[in-house]
Amino acid sequence: MKVDGRPMRTIWLEPDGWAVGIIDQTRLPHRFETMRLETLDQAAHAIRAMLVRGAPLIGVAAAYGVCLALREDASDAALDAACDTLAKTRPTAINLRWALGEMTAAVRHLPREARVAAAYARAGEIAEEDVAINQAIGRHGGALIEATARRKVGERVEILTHCNAGWLAAVDWGTALAPIYTAHERGIPLHVWVDETRPRNQGASLTAWELSRHGVPCTLIADNTGGHLMQHGKVDLVIVGTDRVTAQGDVCNKIGTYLKALAAHDNGVPFYVALPSPTLDFAVVDGVAEIPIEERGAEEVTEIAGKTADGRIETVRIAPDGVTAANYGFDVTPARLVTGLITERGVVAPNRAALAAAFAERAGAGRA
Amino acid sequence: MKVDGRPMRTIWLEPDGWAVGIIDQTRLPHRFETMRLETLDQAAHAIRAMLVRGAPLIGVAAAYGVCLALREDASDAALDAACDTLAKTRPTAINLRWALGEMTAAVRHLPREARVAAAYARAGEIAEEDVAINQAIGRHGGALIEATARRKVGERVEILTHCNAGWLAAVDWGTALAPIYTAHERGIPLHVWVDETRPRNQGASLTAWELSRHGVPCTLIADNTGGHLMQHGKVDLVIVGTDRVTAQGDVCNKIGTYLKALAAHDNGVPFYVALPSPTLDFAVVDGVAEIPIEERGAEEVTEIAGKTADGRIETVRIAPDGVTAANYGFDVTPARLVTGLITERGVVAPNRAALAAAFAERAGAGRA
Repeated sequence: MKVDGRPMRTIWLEPDGWAVGIIDQTRLPHRFETMRLETLDQAAHAIRAMLVRGAPLIGVAAAYGVCLALREDASDAALDAACDTLAKTRPTAINLRWALGEMTAAVRHLPREARVAAAYARAGEIAEEDVAINQAIGRHGGALIEATARRKVGERVEILTHCNAGWLAAVDWGTALAPIYTAHERGIPLHVWVDETRPRNQGASLTAWELSRHGVPCTLIADNTGGHLMQHGKVDLVIVGTDRVTAQGDVCNKIGTYLKALAAHDNGVPFYVALPSPTLDFAVVDGVAEIPIEERGAEEVTEIAGKTADGRIETVRIAPDGVTAANYGFDVTPARLVTGLITERGVVAPNRAALAAAFAERAGAGRA
Repeated sequence: MKVDGRPMRTIWLEPDGWAVGIIDQTRLPHRFETMRLETLDQAAHAIRAMLVRGAPLIGVAAAYGVCLALREDASDAALDAACDTLAKTRPTAINLRWALGEMTAAVRHLPREARVAAAYARAGEIAEEDVAINQAIGRHGGALIEATARRKVGERVEILTHCNAGWLAAVDWGTALAPIYTAHERGIPLHVWVDETRPRNQGASLTAWELSRHGVPCTLIADNTGGHLMQHGKVDLVIVGTDRVTAQGDVCNKIGTYLKALAAHDNGVPFYVALPSPTLDFAVVDGVAEIPIEERGAEEVTEIAGKTADGRIETVRIAPDGVTAANYGFDVTPARLVTGLITERGVVAPNRAALAAAFAERAGAGRA
């Protein structure tokens, strides 16, 4: 998508053809800086420290991390070690492990001297597939927004989203925001309520940033606000992304998603989840019971970084001295609260039969 | 309650017997500063700018504001003007208007020369009544915590609260936190999950501060977290305060309360609301439709103040430049989601008949 008129992706090969370029998303929204990754360790650090984040982008970054590792050592041992290192960077998003599986399958059977080229080829394919998938999600989800617009003649469609599942979370377009970008480009009047998404504020730092820089009308709100807006008819639909969807359609996503799903359900507001099929995990059924939830450092809750009046980036403590915090990264929204799953193959009902029918090849692999 | 061992209230008469002392709550948790109010304008500013906040404390501060006004001019016109000025400081909490009604009733029938003394007497009574009411709330709510503790032998009772309805929101003890302080003083092992309560962070700045300074175990969490905790059995009960409860038991409280009530309901976690009877508004029935919701400045969402590593208080912008925000201060939790209302007269069911029976004298006035 565009940053102040200039088309960008979140990850790319540098002109030398092997180093990997990324946007350092920890610097947003106050600084827009790109960065060059040359080693496995740099790629692992970029994922772990969330310079790149978002389930689809993590998968692509991990794929390129395998490429960087194989450039230095293309042995089986090095391949396994690289996958092991990368798998441990973030525990919740399934795309990461899916991408590592794809990379292993693409190179393992090859002689060492052929592995690097094959790895770059497969990583590039995964990136392009992500773009194509997200464009398809944009078409299917955009049609939902367009249908809402037809019922609201002369009024803009009001959409609420949580966290960042925009182009910054993917290679381009995004998942939850792809339908919004698509509808916006078709000229449908719309407005997005952006949950700030504490504690890391990805809504404020990333979603509000990318929507406003692309020219999509949006308003930032505290995470507490969505229920009130829905009670008062100010939200037509909710669209969020996800880090993992189970065989029965339970949705793991950024902490707080479940609360918005409850509010949507209580107020009859459609609640959609946009996902590329690599986010499906047919090996898991009951999301609440089975999905491991990442716990992160207390300082993400007790401290916050921002820009001072004179333009410096400063970190301030917002909790009282001596008080500690708990920091769960994700929660699980049960399938019963989800209206539909917007995938590259269309909008799928959040239940086992519909998911297995729509993604038969993945469902079979999950049961194996 | 105690601040590092020293007993404190939130509002008091200074040794000269007429000026009003307060804690400047906008400076918490990083600075503990008291302040002297000498004029109506200072009192109105203290309420408007939230140096004092919390429905019960706003009521008492407004009562003393009337006293300060009458010291300068005890005429009917001055009394009316003072009430008008104070009523406009904050729109949502009903205690403010209740207290102004009480003050007017106490002085209006008196000759001018008797009004100042009568005003101070009534304001003092309102403050003492607030303490007595909150102690009673503490007894009734403390019994609920004690009953939970009897079922969890050897384990601590896990309580979640939102915003600040502690002693800082009242004169002493608080409403939602009074049961917690009472149970803690009885030696019941307990732990409080404190929602940080964006955008003004009263949970972090005030609740975590007062609980930790009094010695009650607590953990700060992002507002997004409560649903996940409840899904995993980590919350035994929720207790919140309120700014207004309607005749049918709808609960207006800090924005985000409704989302926690939905999560409690979805997980079978008891959801209690603690309130002094002045917070009841029998003139309003349907809270969602009828209660005006305060909208505050966008900068409360886009900027945040905190303490730098070297101890300075600094305000930083956390939203991208050019992005605006909406800031609704409260939401309404429908009575159907409330387990019980903890009042000074016991735990009352959240419905019209039970409230009218428990507070017959107030219910009659509301219908008049």
